[in-house]
Amino acid sequence: MDIEAFRKAGYQAIDRICDYYYSLQNRPVVPSVQPGYLLDALPDSPPEQGEDFTVIADDYQKYILPGLTHWQHPSFFAYFPTACTFEGILGDLYSTSTANPGFNWLASPACTELEMVVMDWSAKLLGLSEHFLHSSGKGGGVIQTTASELALVVVVAARERYLRIHPDAKADELVIYTTTQTHSLGVKAGLVFGMECRALEVKAEDAYALRGATLKSALEEDEKRGKRPFILVATVGTTSSGAIDRLDEIGQVSEDYPSLWIHVDAAWAGVTLACPEYRGTAQLENINAYATSFGTNFHKWGLVNFDAALLWVKDRKDLTDALDVTPEFLRTKQGDAGAVVDFRNWHLGLGRRFRSLKVWFVLRSYGVEGFRNYIRQGIKLNEHFTSLIRASLDFSLVTAPSFALTVFRLTPAGASLTGSELNELNRAFYARLSSRHDIMLTQTVLNGVFCIRFAVGAARTQQEHIDTAWDLLQQEGAVAVQEYMQKISKDVQ
Amino acid sequence: MDIEAFRKAGYQAIDRICDYYYSLQNRPVVPSVQPGYLLDALPDSPPEQGEDFTVIADDYQKYILPGLTHWQHPSFFAYFPTACTFEGILGDLYSTSTANPGFNWLASPACTELEMVVMDWSAKLLGLSEHFLHSSGKGGGVIQTTASELALVVVVAARERYLRIHPDAKADELVIYTTTQTHSLGVKAGLVFGMECRALEVKAEDAYALRGATLKSALEEDEKRGKRPFILVATVGTTSSGAIDRLDEIGQVSEDYPSLWIHVDAAWAGVTLACPEYRGTAQLENINAYATSFGTNFHKWGLVNFDAALLWVKDRKDLTDALDVTPEFLRTKQGDAGAVVDFRNWHLGLGRRFRSLKVWFVLRSYGVEGFRNYIRQGIKLNEHFTSLIRASLDFSLVTAPSFALTVFRLTPAGASLTGSELNELNRAFYARLSSRHDIMLTQTVLNGVFCIRFAVGAARTQQEHIDTAWDLLQQEGAVAVQEYMQKISKDVQ
Repeated sequence: MDIEAFRKAGYQAIDRICDYYYSLQNRPVVPSVQPGYLLDALPDSPPEQGEDFTVIADDYQKYILPGLTHWQHPSFFAYFPTACTFEGILGDLYSTSTANPGFNWLASPACTELEMVVMDWSAKLLGLSEHFLHSSGKGGGVIQTTASELALVVVVAARERYLRIHPDAKADELVIYTTTQTHSLGVKAGLVFGMECRALEVKAEDAYALRGATLKSALEEDEKRGKRPFILVATVGTTSSGAIDRLDEIGQVSEDYPSLWIHVDAAWAGVTLACPEYRGTAQLENINAYATSFGTNFHKWGLVNFDAALLWVKDRKDLTDALDVTPEFLRTKQGDAGAVVDFRNWHLGLGRRFRSLKVWFVLRSYGVEGFRNYIRQGIKLNEHFTSLIRASLDFSLVTAPSFALTVFRLTPAGASLTGSELNELNRAFYARLSSRHDIMLTQTVLNGVFCIRFAVGAARTQQEHIDTAWDLLQQEGAVAVQEYMQKISKDVQ
Repeated sequence: MDIEAFRKAGYQAIDRICDYYYSLQNRPVVPSVQPGYLLDALPDSPPEQGEDFTVIADDYQKYILPGLTHWQHPSFFAYFPTACTFEGILGDLYSTSTANPGFNWLASPACTELEMVVMDWSAKLLGLSEHFLHSSGKGGGVIQTTASELALVVVVAARERYLRIHPDAKADELVIYTTTQTHSLGVKAGLVFGMECRALEVKAEDAYALRGATLKSALEEDEKRGKRPFILVATVGTTSSGAIDRLDEIGQVSEDYPSLWIHVDAAWAGVTLACPEYRGTAQLENINAYATSFGTNFHKWGLVNFDAALLWVKDRKDLTDALDVTPEFLRTKQGDAGAVVDFRNWHLGLGRRFRSLKVWFVLRSYGVEGFRNYIRQGIKLNEHFTSLIRASLDFSLVTAPSFALTVFRLTPAGASLTGSELNELNRAFYARLSSRHDIMLTQTVLNGVFCIRFAVGAARTQQEHIDTAWDLLQQEGAVAVQEYMQKISKDVQ
């Protein structure tokens, strides 16, 4: 493809992306395809001769678009939102157009320096302390791929720091602490490192937050059994219910355990720190006081296209001491002189994409005010949904709503159902919901209670979509209740 | 930014990318900026109010472009090439425009299925055996971020497989085998897992290839000292010199060590397997016979924009047994039914970008023939460069050229220099080269010999650029020799 053919195909792509967003609302959220649809439709070998790009672009419309789950659809309430802004698209477009893997400063000075700039900007946007900034000369931020990979980086750094302090520690004594509500990144880190991952218990009455006393007794218990917890992954905004661990209590306990690394995973809810009015709830003060590292994904609710998992550490040497590899072919005079940051030593891989560009585009185009307003809008829409649940006799909240996430279930008025019956009813209700294509939600289980998550944050969601979702939930709920009551009355007969 | 503003900014971006490629040849390869140039130029906080995108787009031209190292420049001969095709750019553009992290089938069916399709297509393009294909029902391929992360995935799978076979093995007995020429991914894996990484010796007379006898004696030695080597990272095309480990001998040795996982890293040279005439040199038959896993980066010399590190395994259960995490909120009826591949259990993270789209675009637009011709062109240009070196009295090859990589040094005719003097001369020569902005090469050290790498493969490189590079190398070489001879003659006086 030559330059002019690219111009033509590029214009067409831009036009088709515009068409996509004009038509998005009228598409199903969840595609109707069956497993194997695309494997069956496409040839099983690549073509011998090159094909014309107009055919390929048309096949994208014909085969790919109908098989996508539309995360940007205004009626997408599943998982957590995944950001997709026009600014983010443009950032990715400019970035890929010069493909240069900025693993060290010289490999592309702009990539490294813009990442330092936007990580400091983002830290300031969120109110993080000076000690997390590159400008401090000691801490700093770096863009990782996902929260899971970010956690792996942090675990390596924490382990090496721990082993420097306790050189006698053995590999099989090391333990990662999470809670039963921590994202799968905790369990995955345990699998990846072949390490024990201890999930500390949390209680419904604490809104699924880790308390200091639980942490303290686990630490004491593990000390007795010769185990060495070296990192705690605490969460601000868990995936299941948006729970916020009690960083104040955790921080106080950790003061007696100075070699315990406190990582705060705020993958989803971290962006709320942009708004001064949520900094208390999201525990900014305690993050700044106690976190050794802090992570949040701007690619979730933070307007930057996937992927952009932002990690800050108080001491950059914890990363580079653990991850520095500099063979001869990667040496540069600027690196040797210590004059620059070489981000290859801040993450797992070597090469890295120029992801800071889309962060820069988003922060400049929205400004601090625009970013805040976007977060506020999501929370406001969720409050609207919550008010509908609260006013209903047939639905109830399972736990207090958290920012833009509500966890709820059917609890039909007048029906006297046991805990396991309610679970069964709600599984049937959820099965009905998940067979629909015009809305998408996800399920979870909170300490044995089956429930449904409603996560707001797709950019095009308006109050009308919440209201439509609510109508639909009520209808499906009524049918689910009717069918279930018939079923159990038959069982009784 | 609304849809129409995006159309305008999108057209502008496409036009500016076209301008970039029309002007690329006239730009410097290496930017003239100094460390800190961008940190000094940009404000230290994000703007309070959003800015107009035209200003932001202009600032990209003003601040970012001048600070990029142009990996697509026809005179870029450093590291290895990083692919950037128009098809790849369009793939990334369509992909980012619907941002949907396809961690399981339901999260976006097209993402999962297209990845299966293009991984089978690519395996066929390279001549890999049926057992690496998804269609085999047992093996399969998956796109990873980089060769380093790919290696981490493989190490985890290999470790868990080893521990299933040898449940008595202790963590600190495990050893990763590489060679002294393995990419930094080997050392990095050792750092990440806190594991011993033993670099087996290779010799210049073997063209830096690992021999079976070296592997065998290491295995015997480690058995005696109670160590457990569980994976060997062998390479087809090392970074320093393009060395190709002797997979035939390695394979034969490994038959006595069935729990040793053989990973073949062909990050750079794997794409040569597309051409039937290079399959012997690149050891296709032995890869198919002995490799437990095989990786190659289409984002290097394989026409697909960064990142696209392709991994195939003979047994997909080795990945999923090691990496499967399925909390309630990630369960789907298709996943529960075992009817689909959920790629989240094939890599380190959870979310993943829709990278298969650009692989699909590239393979269809180039076709098998176009892909092969591209590889052949790079090798032919390198042969031209090699012929110039061979004909010269003042330069020599340090080892035989490998595909599109030549490792050479100054060895001035008539000067009788010791090994360390030659190293010193070549360091001075390289320092001259690396202070230029119109060409980029990288250095390496091969068993104590300092040398310079010349890697061909940027899409716009033609014979004229090789000839210009050669003129420049001769000029800089002559000055380096003259200065060095003056220096040592002064030292003698």
